[in-house]
Amino acid sequence: MTPDLSLVPIGFVRSPLVDRGEASRQGDEGAPECTIELDPAYASAAADLTVDEVVLVLTWLHEADRAARLVRPRGDADRPLTGVFSTRSPDRPNPIGLHRVQITGIDGNRLRVRDLEAIDGTPVLDIKPVLGDVDER
Amino acid sequence: MTPDLSLVPIGFVRSPLVDRGEASRQGDEGAPECTIELDPAYASAAADLTVDEVVLVLTWLHEADRAARLVRPRGDADRPLTGVFSTRSPDRPNPIGLHRVQITGIDGNRLRVRDLEAIDGTPVLDIKPVLGDVDER
Repeated sequence: MTPDLSLVPIGFVRSPLVDRGEASRQGDEGAPECTIELDPAYASAAADLTVDEVVLVLTWLHEADRAARLVRPRGDADRPLTGVFSTRSPDRPNPIGLHRVQITGIDGNRLRVRDLEAIDGTPVLDIKPVLGDVDER
Repeated sequence: MTPDLSLVPIGFVRSPLVDRGEASRQGDEGAPECTIELDPAYASAAADLTVDEVVLVLTWLHEADRAARLVRPRGDADRPLTGVFSTRSPDRPNPIGLHRVQITGIDGNRLRVRDLEAIDGTPVLDIKPVLGDVDER
């Protein structure tokens, strides 16, 4: 019994970053502001998001190497090979990116966000509120 | 150009919880200890995980209602209908669960974990380290 595990993009990242090599390693290390363009089919699901809110965004890191099992953290040749589940490398069996971002503007189905390190065209999978007691403790 | 967004289970939750109604709303509200049984194909990816470590576990909430756009948070009839992207409801377009858990034991391909509120048989998608400066800030 293999369950059906297929995702649907709820939107896409629109960013000046077009090349994986340009993306900063984590969002707070210099990602430019970018836009999440939501599919209008999900407008009601997004209707309670607010400007200034900090949310978790899940993305599909579509250029990832899904066969990777061991990587050097942050691509640093001086670091030892490490199991991908102990790293935040995009190269992993299910390349789901987890980003903590701040919403800086909302214009219809477009969310302007800060600190999202993802290249242009990256599929967006989900937006979740931060739970202080669960995520920040 | 629709990208292929299909997930592979890296393992499954083995838990005494068998019914969604029994699962606590968040992991720190009384989830029993349970086990993540990893597919041996991912043994090297998991080889650097350690006992006592706190990690993020992503799951596929296989009993979710993917058509949901508005829910009452925590199933509370007294709360207003809220867009799912402003809630942690399992009912959402891509039912990916995000759990912050502590590893309490490792026995071959079995990880014993605390605070994982997921029912028996839940597919596991990913394990990520907590980044203090990104996730906890």
